[in-house]
Amino acid sequence: MDKVYLDHASATPVRKRVIDAMLPYFGEQFGNPSVVYDMGSKIKLVVEEQRAKVADLIGAKAENIIFTSSGAEANNLAIKGVALGRQKKGNHIIISAIEHHSVLNSARFLERLDFEVTFLQVDQYGIVDPERLRSAITPETVLVSIMHANNEIGTIEPIAELASICREKGVFFHTDAVASVGNVKVDVKELNVDLLSLSGASFGAPKGIGALYFAKNMRLMPLIHGGIQENGRRAGTENVPGIVGLGAAAEFAREEILEKTESVRKLRDLLIAGVRERIDKFKLTGHPVQRLPGHASFCFEAIEGESLVFLLAQAGIYANTGSACASKALKTSPVLTAIGVPPALAQGSVVFTIDKSNYLEEIEYVLEKLPVAVDRLRMLSPIWGKEVPVYQEAACT
Amino acid sequence: MDKVYLDHASATPVRKRVIDAMLPYFGEQFGNPSVVYDMGSKIKLVVEEQRAKVADLIGAKAENIIFTSSGAEANNLAIKGVALGRQKKGNHIIISAIEHHSVLNSARFLERLDFEVTFLQVDQYGIVDPERLRSAITPETVLVSIMHANNEIGTIEPIAELASICREKGVFFHTDAVASVGNVKVDVKELNVDLLSLSGASFGAPKGIGALYFAKNMRLMPLIHGGIQENGRRAGTENVPGIVGLGAAAEFAREEILEKTESVRKLRDLLIAGVRERIDKFKLTGHPVQRLPGHASFCFEAIEGESLVFLLAQAGIYANTGSACASKALKTSPVLTAIGVPPALAQGSVVFTIDKSNYLEEIEYVLEKLPVAVDRLRMLSPIWGKEVPVYQEAACT
Repeated sequence: MDKVYLDHASATPVRKRVIDAMLPYFGEQFGNPSVVYDMGSKIKLVVEEQRAKVADLIGAKAENIIFTSSGAEANNLAIKGVALGRQKKGNHIIISAIEHHSVLNSARFLERLDFEVTFLQVDQYGIVDPERLRSAITPETVLVSIMHANNEIGTIEPIAELASICREKGVFFHTDAVASVGNVKVDVKELNVDLLSLSGASFGAPKGIGALYFAKNMRLMPLIHGGIQENGRRAGTENVPGIVGLGAAAEFAREEILEKTESVRKLRDLLIAGVRERIDKFKLTGHPVQRLPGHASFCFEAIEGESLVFLLAQAGIYANTGSACASKALKTSPVLTAIGVPPALAQGSVVFTIDKSNYLEEIEYVLEKLPVAVDRLRMLSPIWGKEVPVYQEAACT
Repeated sequence: MDKVYLDHASATPVRKRVIDAMLPYFGEQFGNPSVVYDMGSKIKLVVEEQRAKVADLIGAKAENIIFTSSGAEANNLAIKGVALGRQKKGNHIIISAIEHHSVLNSARFLERLDFEVTFLQVDQYGIVDPERLRSAITPETVLVSIMHANNEIGTIEPIAELASICREKGVFFHTDAVASVGNVKVDVKELNVDLLSLSGASFGAPKGIGALYFAKNMRLMPLIHGGIQENGRRAGTENVPGIVGLGAAAEFAREEILEKTESVRKLRDLLIAGVRERIDKFKLTGHPVQRLPGHASFCFEAIEGESLVFLLAQAGIYANTGSACASKALKTSPVLTAIGVPPALAQGSVVFTIDKSNYLEEIEYVLEKLPVAVDRLRMLSPIWGKEVPVYQEAACT
């Protein structure tokens, strides 16, 4: 087996048909959509067509989509944009304890500007309790942000229920759907959300392009100030080729989503079942059922996730230690800490994210190589086989 | 003549060799530079190579370059990042009255956060007087931002002199060099600046990529919070293909800059001389000598610049009314107002920006079509030929 890529949460290849759609907009159709002559207006139309395609993927209207340069930028725009836009109404926001760094650090930034932030605790599976959210809302609350699916543990939050509570109380609700859009069916009306972030890099669009869905007539302070692109909500010349790539990838994602969900779920279940059969002393992190269909995340006792990822890469298997963004920044994942994984066990975190392009023989190959790699690392571990009290707390699945 | 494109300030085509450099990073080399395994580290190396190329173009070190999604984002990061990063030191910033909207509106945003902003007036050519800058600096001043070259009137500011005053006073100096990098030789050491913004779209890199140069050890509040990409200064998965495109375009720009400057200056001078010969009642806006070599900007009496741009486009000639970003937002350009062009004359603004790919016959074609178009519009104008007092103020060149 040459290469088994199971890190689709970190990056996805752009397929040829998406690249082909983009290519004309680098060269021949290079005009700036904001210019007044025909070259501009033609390209402006193309941009608007892509906006409609992205909207279609999430059941939204084109006019409620803002193109950004990444999911991180969309999250920053949502959190800071709503908070600063509604500052006169109140200065309290609520996020969960397992949000992506782009949400978490946007909230931390707002603390500097005299906002108060409540970090909602989650249960052992990473689920936010709706009643806990309800009681955290105060008259000062202007925004709640809870991610749709967690990138490290795969858990899908009960967004519709959480969002309804906010709607009832007149508080805006944002969800970071970077890990879910393109991997499960996402519909902003079903989820009942006011804002939703997505990233093209999660589903076969090129890097450097994302989008924010926002409900109509929302006051949103721009993150990037300047000209009147994106209806004054995001300045800077439009990344036309990136937008075309996002539109094309969104179209494919919408057509394929149900088939994809089914096929990756089967492979994911085989992977988890195989790991249970062949390896002991590990924890499946995140919710066992309410999770992304292609997402399998484990903490293996007495090993370092990073070492395991290196060993697997030597066998041509590409997996992740958790969040690509955080992988070099942190020794212990705040997400794993929040769901009660003891620090020593959290070190052994490895995440597999499966795409439609993966197939059975690849999973079988992983199930052949993974136990060997885990064993090898455990043989080298000074703590393997010893009764370390901290491990007794960890409910190994 | 099929098509004469003279709006290179709005957009430039990406040349084939730049596209070819980018292509592998959409497909085969699609990995996320932040992942720990080999696919990531290889791509991380590629990103760092591009950083060095961009640094080379402006005489900087690679470690002092932050990739952004646009020149507008670089300007926002510079203005807000320095101001918020140095807020404890003081709350006063200074910008010129003719800055790009991304600088101007970033400053306006800071006013909401209790900063004071001084808008420095300019002379009839758009030049900032160094002595005026010196006397505007207070003990509270933390940042001065004055653009290198103005995109609407082509004027090049005496940046080295302005920056030295700030250096002397311990105030950080930023220059928006979006209009100049790739069009004239730019060296951060010669300019003596602490921060400099550039945009790839100005010199044949794709849209959606820009960069900020910052002097070492500068405290800079991120604009996009999140992971630790760009050394914690700009979160979000790196736009690898865009970065590779920027690197390749920067390499070409560095190799060709002197030759380009000469060739576009000749064409620009021919265009201006030809307009003087064939058309009366117009003003060449901006500085007659201290201006971008490929930049010719005019205000024609008694016409609407937008109508002229449309008529020219019908003849296959593409020019601009001023700033692409502002073209749909504003009736009167604040830049033309700042240099004292009366509102009625400012309506007749047309800007030609010439690239190395343009040639003599194209300029001759413009000189054939432009006078006809101006005449045609003037014949339709209710004010043409009448003594309108406001025009007497306008010093028609």
